[in-house]
Amino acid sequence: MDKSKFKYKTQVRVRNYEVDWQGIVHNGNYLLYFEVGRVEYLKHIGAKLDLNTIRGESKVVLVRNEIDYKAPASFDQLLNVYTRISFIKNSSFAMEGILEKADDGVIIALNTAYHVWLDPATDRPKTVGTDFRKLIEGFEGNDCDILWPTYTV
Amino acid sequence: MDKSKFKYKTQVRVRNYEVDWQGIVHNGNYLLYFEVGRVEYLKHIGAKLDLNTIRGESKVVLVRNEIDYKAPASFDQLLNVYTRISFIKNSSFAMEGILEKADDGVIIALNTAYHVWLDPATDRPKTVGTDFRKLIEGFEGNDCDILWPTYTV
Amino acid sequence: MDKSKFKYKTQVRVRNYEVDWQGIVHNGNYLLYFEVGRVEYLKHIGAKLDLNTIRGESKVVLVRNEIDYKAPASFDQLLNVYTRISFIKNSSFAMEGILEKADDGVIIALNTAYHVWLDPATDRPKTVGTDFRKLIEGFEGNDCDILWPTYTV
Amino acid sequence: MDKSKFKYKTQVRVRNYEVDWQGIVHNGNYLLYFEVGRVEYLKHIGAKLDLNTIRGESKVVLVRNEIDYKAPASFDQLLNVYTRISFIKNSSFAMEGILEKADDGVIIALNTAYHVWLDPATDRPKTVGTDFRKLIEGFEGNDCDILWPTYTV
Repeated sequence: MDKSKFKYKTQVRVRNYEVDWQGIVHNGNYLLYFEVGRVEYLKHIGAKLDLNTIRGESKVVLVRNEIDYKAPASFDQLLNVYTRISFIKNSSFAMEGILEKADDGVIIALNTAYHVWLDPATDRPKTVGTDFRKLIEGFEGNDCDILWPTYTV
Repeated sequence: MDKSKFKYKTQVRVRNYEVDWQGIVHNGNYLLYFEVGRVEYLKHIGAKLDLNTIRGESKVVLVRNEIDYKAPASFDQLLNVYTRISFIKNSSFAMEGILEKADDGVIIALNTAYHVWLDPATDRPKTVGTDFRKLIEGFEGNDCDILWPTYTV
Repeated sequence: MDKSKFKYKTQVRVRNYEVDWQGIVHNGNYLLYFEVGRVEYLKHIGAKLDLNTIRGESKVVLVRNEIDYKAPASFDQLLNVYTRISFIKNSSFAMEGILEKADDGVIIALNTAYHVWLDPATDRPKTVGTDFRKLIEGFEGNDCDILWPTYTV
Repeated sequence: MDKSKFKYKTQVRVRNYEVDWQGIVHNGNYLLYFEVGRVEYLKHIGAKLDLNTIRGESKVVLVRNEIDYKAPASFDQLLNVYTRISFIKNSSFAMEGILEKADDGVIIALNTAYHVWLDPATDRPKTVGTDFRKLIEGFEGNDCDILWPTYTV
């Protein structure tokens, strides 16, 4: 992943109960840190979108997660969580995350989370909303690969 | 606590991510095991009651927890969770729990969880439902100290 | 609890995965927030003491937790966690905590956590270390009720 | 994934605190259920191997997780966790998992977890141990694609 493409960063501090018997963060927690990043990102850009929650005419669900573990984080470390939306296709989009140690920039883990936009009445994929596309285009600019629905006919 | 008064037992097995850097269960998990016991207990006796959830005319909230930690549990251990309702007063009741190792009966922790019955419209305490009292009386018999509302006038 | 006696405050922000099906923080998390407070408190005062971890000649274990739930916290709320040591007896000490909403000061929960100082070789209680008593006395002053060992003969 | 290739199954029951505000299991927990499957699998086949833990001359680390979310699990559901080792290369191996509802076989999620065998002295990859290869070959037979080190020269 290319860190220069990430325009949003938040931070989490490792809590003591997240550390396992080896004194390092249990691998299940990295996924949660990336989720903190995604929620904060959406709040930051003003998206009227709760991931996984029905909001009026649409529902967004997480369909796939990929996590690469690069180095362990330890108790009480402050971590940077970089988040961006890397692409929007017809009915799906991907959010990428980089987790690194705040003090020395050592990469802890990388994540790509794939989401699908559903019609809550049928649970079938529907086109990602235009408002959302415009919001992401405004924030991410050319760094996000957006396929506009008119192009998909 | 007097184990002979407990009429319901369920079991939990310690999962690897519940174990901390000392190889023992992180203290926050014991509380969760007791909650598993309470949920299973209510299901077992057929109580139409979700703890902490509004169900028609009533809402039940957890107001206090007391936990005594006696010995640590370890990875992969099978634990017995004994649960009972020890008293019902006018608008409150208490659930007791004993957590022990299934293989040798060593006590891990003891819990008392105090609940209050609320009117969901006002969030003020109301009398514990008669159906619930009868259900508990039928299951617990004389081992549960039940104060019937007529006695409280 | 008397908030004016607390000299240390840290903060936690509610993470989305800590919220349950009612949109409020699952009760098991409050205990974890108080633990964050205790760990930060000890770090802040410079105590060479990891709770629950053996450090040279001593081991400190959590033996009892009492939590009173006053009001629910919700997703994304910033919470203040006040922590203090309220007493030190011969081989035990208590840490109190107040959890409140940072924006309006509404009390979420209260906690008292009792610890015992053990000899790691025998797992029997031993006198709380003098260095630790002095450190707490220096930080808490008269607000902590310290029983000095000479008084216990 | 081809379920007929899986020779080991364990089960987990969804606990109430694993369920989020929509009444379904928070996505972070599926990863933990798969980990329960991997730990039980290794115990079942008798592998002298703790994932992520140093054991004598070797250390095994999780380097990548892929999870596809197919359908949500709900409170109190009993879930089957199928686990197998799908390949062993020179210094790496992959564990696959299928999570399904026990009552109707509906697929909840799929997982592939990639591990690397390290020399604990240098933290550099080393050849997967022969004892481990033989153990997996004996259990998985032709369903596991094993690259023997002699083939890699």
